[in-house]
Amino acid sequence: MDITSYLSDKQSVIEDGLKALMLQTTGSFAKHIEAMRYSLFASGKRVRPILCLATGEALDNSLETAKNLLPVACALECIHTYSLVHDDLPAMDNDTLRRGKPTNHILFGEAGAILAGDSLLTFAFELLSREDNSTLPAQKRLRIIEMIARAAGPLGMVGGQTLDIESEQIAVPLPVLQTIHRAKTGALITCSIQAGAIGAGATIEEMEKLTIYGEKIGLAFQIVDDILNVTSTTEQLGKAAGSDANRGKATYPAFFGIEQTKAKAKEAIEEAIDALHGFDAKADPLRQLATFIYTRSN
Amino acid sequence: MDITSYLSDKQSVIEDGLKALMLQTTGSFAKHIEAMRYSLFASGKRVRPILCLATGEALDNSLETAKNLLPVACALECIHTYSLVHDDLPAMDNDTLRRGKPTNHILFGEAGAILAGDSLLTFAFELLSREDNSTLPAQKRLRIIEMIARAAGPLGMVGGQTLDIESEQIAVPLPVLQTIHRAKTGALITCSIQAGAIGAGATIEEMEKLTIYGEKIGLAFQIVDDILNVTSTTEQLGKAAGSDANRGKATYPAFFGIEQTKAKAKEAIEEAIDALHGFDAKADPLRQLATFIYTRSN
Repeated sequence: MDITSYLSDKQSVIEDGLKALMLQTTGSFAKHIEAMRYSLFASGKRVRPILCLATGEALDNSLETAKNLLPVACALECIHTYSLVHDDLPAMDNDTLRRGKPTNHILFGEAGAILAGDSLLTFAFELLSREDNSTLPAQKRLRIIEMIARAAGPLGMVGGQTLDIESEQIAVPLPVLQTIHRAKTGALITCSIQAGAIGAGATIEEMEKLTIYGEKIGLAFQIVDDILNVTSTTEQLGKAAGSDANRGKATYPAFFGIEQTKAKAKEAIEEAIDALHGFDAKADPLRQLATFIYTRSN
Repeated sequence: MDITSYLSDKQSVIEDGLKALMLQTTGSFAKHIEAMRYSLFASGKRVRPILCLATGEALDNSLETAKNLLPVACALECIHTYSLVHDDLPAMDNDTLRRGKPTNHILFGEAGAILAGDSLLTFAFELLSREDNSTLPAQKRLRIIEMIARAAGPLGMVGGQTLDIESEQIAVPLPVLQTIHRAKTGALITCSIQAGAIGAGATIEEMEKLTIYGEKIGLAFQIVDDILNVTSTTEQLGKAAGSDANRGKATYPAFFGIEQTKAKAKEAIEEAIDALHGFDAKADPLRQLATFIYTRSN
């Protein structure tokens, strides 16, 4: 399989799914919906939803499972997008550029961006619970909702972002940096995989292996992000390069230097792939996705 | 029955429920959880969760239904609280006082308040989906989640707040004001009642009646809020009085004057009580709650 065409195929699937599920810019709330759509359709890489779909395929590549997981995948992308919109706010990272375009608050104002984020988050839970968009047993759907809410909430993504901001300009020890990474980035990535696993009927053993896979690529993903923030130009990144250092953020490169950090990312990727031992060729996209995440840093 | 002692009993039930379900201020995210707790335990009136529990009781006053609805009621209060935290932000209403205390962002900073709100919203969906806290059939729990997500989202509460802010200093026509009210305040109040109805096994006919009840008291509630903003002192309100006029906000009193506005609130309350025709004495708290909402304005 060719990972580049796999990614591009899956990006289209997600794009179409989001277009079908997302609200249209009509009616009283048209401007608000436009603000939601602006960030949702800003050419994101769709990493989390792709991981969700690829995990589903690794266990059960039936059309029905793919259909059931599509709204879950779209909900994950809504949550990821809302987190970016809020992270970019003047009160947070104060970024004006994201994916090479003006950030949400630059175009829709601070209030507009806060509210667009709020709605993207809320809408994600509508997608996860809508009566008409899944044939999964209700019990499984509830488990997916609980898992995503935990991963995205105070002990997960939002908690991690809070700790990240609290830790700016402070010399935090490595364990705190690891907690930030695990919560801010790792939790949602891991649960994207776990949600796919639940939707595709994973056994307990499969779930354990996939959870390790998720945790390891979550870690690698954040380490690579740290590396790119140092080594790339703003043009390459589509957002402000060097911003971590400017904000006095703790990062892996700050602790270990670039070369050792790259080695750590590679190690995490290898451990992720090892965790998939026993899965058949249907899990090849997951294996190659892991490698792909690493090669971004080179 | 005495509505004052009913309210105080139910406030205790909600308070205890929130204390039991809410995260403790320990661990890496202690400060973030403190920010969530600060607004959640800031002596709110608990109107939405009480409406949810009272609706449950009106249909089925068993202990099991009460237990099943408690996490739903607490989730509604988390969502209401997050909306206040975000509404108070400098980028929105820029309020420094809420319930007689400093607003969240005054104490925890703007980023801290945005994130505390984000986590309260996300945590609400954790409460609604947690495996261990309900014996309701999963299908019903999903319906409650969907209903709440719709009411709180882009076509409901957040959409209403967006439109409200967009409409400041603009002479909006009455239908727009009514859309704002219905979405910003009415939707979550109505769905608090509907969620209670689903949890207590309402028939379609009961659900229809309760929905009308909810829409009417939602309207009355917002009208009374508009009135109080004009007629009360800051000390009585616990937040800035006269702020609607200062911000050039469309309100019922601005359209109709105080007396006619009061008459409209009274009419809505009467229609709410009428909608409960056919319900037995178990619905008396709902009837008296309607009256209570109106008497706040006098």
